Amino acid sequence: MLGKKGKVYIMKIALINENSQAAKNELVCKVLTNVAAKYGHTVDNYGMLNAEDKSLTYVQNGLLAAILLNSKACDFVVTGCGTGAGAMLACNSFPKVLCGLVVEPSDAYLFGQINDGNAIAMPFAKGFGWGAELNLENVFENLFKAPFGGGYPKERVIPEQRNKKILDGVKEITHTPMIEILNKIDQQFLKETIDRDTFKKYFFENAKDQEIIDYCKKVLNM
Amino acid sequence: MLGKKGKVYIMKIALINENSQAAKNELVCKVLTNVAAKYGHTVDNYGMLNAEDKSLTYVQNGLLAAILLNSKACDFVVTGCGTGAGAMLACNSFPKVLCGLVVEPSDAYLFGQINDGNAIAMPFAKGFGWGAELNLENVFENLFKAPFGGGYPKERVIPEQRNKKILDGVKEITHTPMIEILNKIDQQFLKETIDRDTFKKYFFENAKDQEIIDYCKKVLNM
Repeated sequence: MLGKKGKVYIMKIALINENSQAAKNELVCKVLTNVAAKYGHTVDNYGMLNAEDKSLTYVQNGLLAAILLNSKACDFVVTGCGTGAGAMLACNSFPKVLCGLVVEPSDAYLFGQINDGNAIAMPFAKGFGWGAELNLENVFENLFKAPFGGGYPKERVIPEQRNKKILDGVKEITHTPMIEILNKIDQQFLKETIDRDTFKKYFFENAKDQEIIDYCKKVLNM
Repeated sequence: MLGKKGKVYIMKIALINENSQAAKNELVCKVLTNVAAKYGHTVDNYGMLNAEDKSLTYVQNGLLAAILLNSKACDFVVTGCGTGAGAMLACNSFPKVLCGLVVEPSDAYLFGQINDGNAIAMPFAKGFGWGAELNLENVFENLFKAPFGGGYPKERVIPEQRNKKILDGVKEITHTPMIEILNKIDQQFLKETIDRDTFKKYFFENAKDQEIIDYCKKVLNM
């Protein structure tokens, strides 16, 4: 896959499910992993792995997504909840997270091409009926089949990329830096979010921001 | 309409359209005003009023929505763009703004009942075909027909309201205060956003935050 600067790149994708739709994690992970593999991307499944796994609320999905993206433990997040709206709102509350709400394949393509974000939230209850795995497959295919930020329609690529850069700049001003957020947020809420086997395995293997790594170690008494 | 504390309340709704779909402002405003009036709400049309009106980008829609909501010049914002995603991302970049992406009527109802936000972004190009005004009418009807935050399903109201409060609390930590944002943001970008006849009319009539009012007056050389 060709990246924005013409280089081949692969992405590390984090999957995050919250409590209400945790039972669908296995299906979503399977479809996501299969489609991602076609493009050389890999998936780290942060859970909840099933309905019995340690609970995450949709707000915690947003916090976890932000920790992973800000520390560069992953390049892209796939998350969701019943309607997708809660997980989307939670993700977008944080710096350096641009999370689209994606219901069907053309949403995914347009979000990747126009908005060039780094996360999607999907509805895993609303509209998730018979054949939903086919929609998942088509969504992920349309998300990954072309490098992000290519524009749609193609002739609008320049103003679309310009607005995306302006939005990134606005978010630099409207958000607290991630390390300050980790310091200020309810520490029990943070600990519940990251005290998970999957986090301990994938995050510490992949994160690149030493301040965030050290802070998470402290919270986990490591 | 019964509010969250059992009191009758009416909302002042701000409509904001960006450049790519500005030509649809008149239609959206007409349908929104009609449905809102059924519930006692009023609509201030901040524009763009048509394709020739002073330009707003979707990022500016977010900034304008945030100024209006943080200053209490309005209680609710209806905005959008081609897909709705850009306006949604821009709105959610700001403090005290919770903006849902609403495509069809049940999105509107679920967002109002579960997420209890204060803005929606709609796609005014994608899927906006013949009969789109009927969808607009049903979306606004489903948004306003019941007080926000009532829960869906009703028996989930307590955890849903709890998560909404937790998300509000998280946003208190993850965002810069609005007055700081106004001070730090590109002043030309800000001036382009608010130097509009509609803003001068509706904002100064309705805004309640003196710091934000004074800052806007300064930017507009008033």
